[in-house]
Formats: sequence, C-alpha cells, structure tokens
Amino acid sequence: MKSFIYHQPTRLFFGRGQIKHLGKEAAKYGEKALLVYGGGSIKKNMIFDAVVRELEKYGIEYKELGEVSPNPVLQRVKEGIRLAREQKSDLVLAVGGGSVLDTAKAIAAGVFATGDVWSMFTGQEPITRALPIGTVLTIAATGSEANAHAVITYETEAKKCAIHSEMIIPRFSIMDPEYTFTVSPRQTAAGVADIMAHLFEQYFSPDPDAVVTDYLTEALLKICVEMGPQAHKEGENMKARANLMWASTLALNGLMSLGKRTDWALHKLSHELSARYDMIHGETFSILYPAWMRYVADADALNRFAHLGKVLFGEKANSSSAFIEHLETFYQSLGLPLHLSERGIGPDRFEEMASNIIDLYGLIGIFKRLDYHDIVRIFQMAL
Amino acid sequence: MKSFIYHQPTRLFFGRGQIKHLGKEAAKYGEKALLVYGGGSIKKNMIFDAVVRELEKYGIEYKELGEVSPNPVLQRVKEGIRLAREQKSDLVLAVGGGSVLDTAKAIAAGVFATGDVWSMFTGQEPITRALPIGTVLTIAATGSEANAHAVITYETEAKKCAIHSEMIIPRFSIMDPEYTFTVSPRQTAAGVADIMAHLFEQYFSPDPDAVVTDYLTEALLKICVEMGPQAHKEGENMKARANLMWASTLALNGLMSLGKRTDWALHKLSHELSARYDMIHGETFSILYPAWMRYVADADALNRFAHLGKVLFGEKANSSSAFIEHLETFYQSLGLPLHLSERGIGPDRFEEMASNIIDLYGLIGIFKRLDYHDIVRIFQMAL
Repeated sequence: MKSFIYHQPTRLFFGRGQIKHLGKEAAKYGEKALLVYGGGSIKKNMIFDAVVRELEKYGIEYKELGEVSPNPVLQRVKEGIRLAREQKSDLVLAVGGGSVLDTAKAIAAGVFATGDVWSMFTGQEPITRALPIGTVLTIAATGSEANAHAVITYETEAKKCAIHSEMIIPRFSIMDPEYTFTVSPRQTAAGVADIMAHLFEQYFSPDPDAVVTDYLTEALLKICVEMGPQAHKEGENMKARANLMWASTLALNGLMSLGKRTDWALHKLSHELSARYDMIHGETFSILYPAWMRYVADADALNRFAHLGKVLFGEKANSSSAFIEHLETFYQSLGLPLHLSERGIGPDRFEEMASNIIDLYGLIGIFKRLDYHDIVRIFQMAL
Repeated sequence: MKSFIYHQPTRLFFGRGQIKHLGKEAAKYGEKALLVYGGGSIKKNMIFDAVVRELEKYGIEYKELGEVSPNPVLQRVKEGIRLAREQKSDLVLAVGGGSVLDTAKAIAAGVFATGDVWSMFTGQEPITRALPIGTVLTIAATGSEANAHAVITYETEAKKCAIHSEMIIPRFSIMDPEYTFTVSPRQTAAGVADIMAHLFEQYFSPDPDAVVTDYLTEALLKICVEMGPQAHKEGENMKARANLMWASTLALNGLMSLGKRTDWALHKLSHELSARYDMIHGETFSILYPAWMRYVADADALNRFAHLGKVLFGEKANSSSAFIEHLETFYQSLGLPLHLSERGIGPDRFEEMASNIIDLYGLIGIFKRLDYHDIVRIFQMAL
C-alpha cells in the first residue's frame, strides 16, 4: 500500500431536519455571509427560507449570489469575489449542488487572489488562504461538500479546470436527503453516473495492495447500482436518497483513493465535452466509460473488470465484456445516454479536444497511459 | 437512516517511514510533551529512538510515563496526570497500542479534573477540556488512534469503564505498518478478534436502512478474514499488516456506526472478564461472540448472520448456524480460544459479573435486549 496523509475535518450534519444546526455553525465564523445558490429552485422548495431563517436567528447578515449554472462559469466566480470583498464576508455559504459548491469554493479562495482568479486554476498563483466555507447540499453527486476540489469553466475560452487545496475543504455541511426529493429523474440518473465515475476513477488502478480501499469502493458502487434505480423511480424514497447522498460524499472525500494511484483520465475527456457542448457532467460518463473500458481492457492485469462485474451484477457478469454490457444496460435503465450521437455530437471536434488535453496535461491516466491517438480513438468509440 | 453528526478531524500519516512527520506535527502544539508508552518493547525495536530523535530535532522537551500495561489501570493514569501537571505539558504523545493510547487520553482529559479523574469515567464530572493528543501506533486493534474513546481499569475495584468525548480525539496519528511487524502471532490474532468485535457490535443492529454503513462494515470484515491469517503467519507481510492497520482505524473511527443504532453488549461482558481475570481483550471476543450469536439468533429478523456468513465464507456459510461454525473455525485457525475453560475460568463469578453489568448499565444490547438472566446464560454458553 502506498503511503498517505489523510485529513478530512468537515463537520457533517446528516439527516432530516439537520438545517437546525446551520445558524449556530455559521455563527462560529462571523456575522457576514455570502450566500451562493443556483437557478432558484431552492426558493420554490422552501430551502432558501429555511436557510435565511437560521441566519436571521443568529444575527448573520447575508448578501446573495444566485444564478450559478451547471458547469459553473468563471464570470459568476468573479462576481462573487467582488461581492465578498465588498461585504467583507466572514463565510461563504453554498446552498445547492456541486456547481454551486464549487463556485463558492472558488470565491472563497479567489477573494485572496492577487490578480485574476483564473491564475489559481492554471497553477500560476498558489492558494494560501480561503474564507471559511459552509454548505447545504441539495443533490447527491459531486462530493464537493467534503473535499478539497472545485471545477470551474472559463466560458469564453471553452476551458474547464480544477483547483485543489486543503484551504477550500468546507468547515461544515448540512446534508438532508429530503432536500434531494425534488431532483428530477434525469438529474438523479446523472448524479448516479457521476458518483460511479468518481469511484471508477479511483478503483481502476494498477496498484493491487490497497485492498481496504478497493473493498470500500466496491461497497459504494453496489449502493449506486441498488439505490440508483430506486431514487430514479421514486424521488421520495428516503432510504434510497439517504444512502445515495452518503455514498456520494464518501466516494470523493479522499477515502477511496488512499494507498493507491488513481486514474482520472476520463474526467479530462468529460471536461472537454462539457466545456464545448455544455453536456450534463454525469451524462458524459455513461457515454465515455463503456468506450474507455473496451479500449483499455487489455491493460487489466488484475482482472478488475471481471471481478467488479461479479460484485455488482453477479456471476453472469464475470468477464470484461459481460461487465461492460451489464453496465451499459444499467445506464440505459436510468435513461442515461450511451453514445455522443444521442446528444447530437459528431466527430468534428475530437482532434481539437484531444490536442487540448495533451497540451494541458501531457499523457493522461494511470490504469493505461493515454496519448493523443488513444484519446481520439476513445471519443470515436463513444460516438 | 437515522440522523447523525460526523466529525473526524485526526490528521493521519500512514505508511513506511511516516515518523518523519512527528516532530513538525508535535511542535504545532507547544514545546513540552508527556511521552506515554508501555512495557518497553519500543525501546528494543528502535521506535522509541526514532520518536526521541524527532522531538529533539524540533526542540521539544519530554517527560516519560512508561510501564503502561494491557488493560491499563487507573494508577498509571493518575501518575501521568501528576507528571503532566508538573511538566505543564503542551501535548500528550502516546507511543504504543490501544492501552497506551487510552491511558494518554485519560491523562489528557484528567489533567483538568477538579477531583478524582475516575469521576469522569462514572460520568459525575463532564469532560470540557483536554490537552492535545498525538499518537504513534504499534499494533492494529483498538482504533483509539482516531476516535473519542478511552477504556481504563480501576484495578482495586475490578471495574473497567470508558470515557467518550470529542476533546480526546487525537490531533494526529503516525501509522507505520512496519511498526507492527514484531507484534507476536498471539497478539496479532487478538487484534484481529478485537477489530472484528468492533465491527460486529456495529453491524448487528436491528436498523435496516443504513445500507452504506452495512456494506462498508462487511468490506472491513472481509479484510479481517483475508488478511488476519496472513499477518498471523508472516509477521512481516507488509500488505497484510498495512490493510489490517487501516481497517482497524476505520472500524472504530465512527464511520461504521453512522445512521443506525449499535449494540455494544458484548464489550460490557468482555470488560467484566478483563477486569477480573486480566484476559487479553481480543481473546474475550472469540469466546463470547459464538455464544452470543447462538443465544440471540432468534432475534435476527434481517437474517444478518446468514448474509454475513455468505459474504465472509461463501455460499456454504449461508445460514446462522453455518456462519457461527465457520467463524469458530476461523478463530481457531488463529489460535484464539473458543471457551472460557481454555483460559482456566470457571462459572463461579458469572452471577457477580452479570449483576455488576446490570448495576452499571441496566439492560444492555440493541440487537436483542439482554437482562441479568440472559447475561448469565451467555457466560454459561461460553464456558
């Protein structure tokens, strides 16, 4: 097992009605909060009211930054930084899903940027400080509520990049599964595909010795396969919503990558698609994973595909090809796409996207190293 | 799933050579450390030297409290409190296994006791402060390196009780699996039985909805069953030692009890045996668990025994009785005892122990509520 340092200090309040802890927790950090949210659905389903009530109860002033979109863009981050500086915010409070949380994290770090905040995403400016961050989660997907990552799209450049820093780990997160009851079937399915992608990226490693991590990852994948369809079919199924929400946090709070190298090649392909075609993040993965798995199957020296097939779908899926077929059937059962063509995307920008990835990162992936030609081929297989 | 609050802020340094982080971490808390350790084996295997080198490199003065025994006693805690007050310690640094860590935790809290520190164990005095705690772990078993618990024996009263407080969660822990290479086969086996007991206490719950937690617990139990025999047979098997060490932390850092009620009845029976007969903690469980499982099998409405049997031992163990038999065979393969008589213990104090448990806690257990007669009967079945 490889050496690691692990530190995950977020205080998590999980369960029905846990919003009651918000005011007291937020007040630990000061009396002025920048409240970040998305398209306004939280105003319809009363979550916004509950948040404001808590803030008012503890005398916390707030300024609002709404209209954060899926595949959140740099412009909203810059607007948030302006507001936070103006307000002299003590806390950035995100109420929403991964896009809102990532925007809040970028603002919290960006407030201390000496120049353009994008230089933190390109690595030119290090992150040395950030405002404290709190979150109220409304969708199970990204794990952003308890990790050190944020992904933002530079919309005018068609670039989607990430920051990673211990400084932007949320101090606390409120996780009420009921808040996800109104997430649409399509977004629920995309969330499941996203959680599974996080787990796949970490599971498919050439390192064989981190067996604890591997078994825990298999456990969370089983949750996705069992609970995903239930939450997709019955939005108000508390058991399914709660287990998916908790699995989504554990899938990307660092635990599932301990003691091993992890892959993350497909996230780079996914980001290219999202940046150019504004695809739903999770839907890129039901398209890309089967293609990638077929392309890299010969590198599977540990027989992880066959083993995982058996764990998730039973003896009948106990080979690479059977696993991939069962996975496709599973994705389809959730209404997820399997081909780029289903989203109207043709081959015309495959080379451009592959070039961009190689320019940004060089060779990618660790399960199998991928070069320009490999990337183009995977896009072609996903067509 | 039941609501929960989760917060586990310990900074973990896991892997070969991670002692290199000790000095810098310790120095965050001040310049005077109380160094707590056990019977002196760390002086033979050079761990003590490595610790002292790190402290000296960062100019940290230390006082020593050695001779902490398995089933650690109140007298050493009191001596440690005296030393810490005298030194005005900034940090309590535990180097050893669960007994040493628990003693360090009791000292860290006890320094602030207004009267006798035992009143914190009886609940008469609340724990409101504690000195910062750091640990260097030398055996995989108790999970004390990343949790809020400490168990101490009041030797002259034959009582073994626990404290629980967020204040005594270690700030950092150094976990080098190589430090467990010299743990004897007998202590290795006892450690495996202890880890499994922690997992059983949490797994055997009447609550069906915390499926994530259940699956994660099954994953860690599989690690015990697969890696335990390897570490028992080959003390220097790095893969087995590393996975066991990491499983032992996760088994009792709070994660495996989230969203459900947990049992903990058998720990109370175990503590009675340890307090009276100074039994090795882990060895009480290979004796008590099969007896308890047979006694409570009729309460297993969720068929957890059969399901777990299949997960751990395959299709052939797919019933309560087959699971229990396979578990006994597994314990025996590690040289663990299955009967009290193997350790020279007769039935003469069963009633006394049962009375003491009922006096301390009332009815115990949640998988099946146990009264005085139930407890006596379980001891008898363990004879």
